Amino acid sequence: MGRRGERRELLAEAAIEVLAAVGGRGLTHRAVDREAHVPEGTTKNYFPSRDSLLAAIADHLAEDHRAAVASLRRNTPTAVTADQLDALYRGMLHRSTGVGRSRLLALLELYLESIRRPSVRAALGSMALANTDATIALHESAGRRLTRAQAGRLDAYLLGLSLLLLALPADVLRGTGLDPAPLPTDAISEGPGRDGGPGSPR
Amino acid sequence: MGRRGERRELLAEAAIEVLAAVGGRGLTHRAVDREAHVPEGTTKNYFPSRDSLLAAIADHLAEDHRAAVASLRRNTPTAVTADQLDALYRGMLHRSTGVGRSRLLALLELYLESIRRPSVRAALGSMALANTDATIALHESAGRRLTRAQAGRLDAYLLGLSLLLLALPADVLRGTGLDPAPLPTDAISEGPGRDGGPGSPR
Repeated sequence: MGRRGERRELLAEAAIEVLAAVGGRGLTHRAVDREAHVPEGTTKNYFPSRDSLLAAIADHLAEDHRAAVASLRRNTPTAVTADQLDALYRGMLHRSTGVGRSRLLALLELYLESIRRPSVRAALGSMALANTDATIALHESAGRRLTRAQAGRLDAYLLGLSLLLLALPADVLRGTGLDPAPLPTDAISEGPGRDGGPGSPR
Repeated sequence: MGRRGERRELLAEAAIEVLAAVGGRGLTHRAVDREAHVPEGTTKNYFPSRDSLLAAIADHLAEDHRAAVASLRRNTPTAVTADQLDALYRGMLHRSTGVGRSRLLALLELYLESIRRPSVRAALGSMALANTDATIALHESAGRRLTRAQAGRLDAYLLGLSLLLLALPADVLRGTGLDPAPLPTDAISEGPGRDGGPGSPR
């Protein structure tokens, strides 16, 4: 990557931190300059409009996500057990609300921005599609064939769950049955049996 | 409700429209004054800080939600069929992404704000708990006993799904299996059997 490419990455990373720390409202070119410790005007030079700055963040997160998915696929044994798959999802959830909190927050901010900004949508759309593919592939390694609808609903669940885990106080999470968070793979592909529910047939 | 109470309602409604139209970034006291067609300074007079304005929106949405849940409970026959329950959820989803779009958008903005603002959390928390109670009660009318964890995961799924339905382009929604959106009740309480999936046992 050339120096200009590296600089773009650095600025996108800084923009993610700004977005996570102060939200869309605080995302200005100057705030990104300060966060990245670059001379004032640098971010504006690389990404002249707010739209192009948001699109750069979205592209950066999407690229990052592609790399993470590729590495996950490379490192997942061809036959994982269902329990390993559960542990893997639990780990991802833990990371995304922990060390990966800034990225998750930035992603959620982008989702809201994208409703009003078509320029951000394309990157989020390709991320969502890659996600569904990865979800299907992962489950297949564990011998579970998911339909696209099942994979899509699992991803929707994880998105909603992540938002709730970040936003709600601990006592409410317990009261809504989300602490401990129901295992993602349980939540969708296995139906209600596992956590002592009433079973599925009516 | 006294005149002052009515005025507060009016301002909260206007703030919801502003939040939905331009996001948290555009939510200023002046923008709410303009949206509500009241003299400049009125909103600031009722809600002096941005925090108190956001908390007022959250309280208003929570109150609204309580009223909607109460009416739903009153109007749902004591024994609905599972199909009626599905239709009811589908209708709610349709409304919340359609005519109720502003409220849904405002709610999603508040979820993100609440991560940084404890003052907004309490209202969202009580809304989430009321939601879980309502989900359990509704399913019970249809002869399905849900655990709190199942109800919580259904609510998490609906939150994520709503965000995706608002944000993603139509072709991506089809590609991720979310168009048509899997029936909420299906999605969680019935497991994968219904949409032609592989069935649950491994």
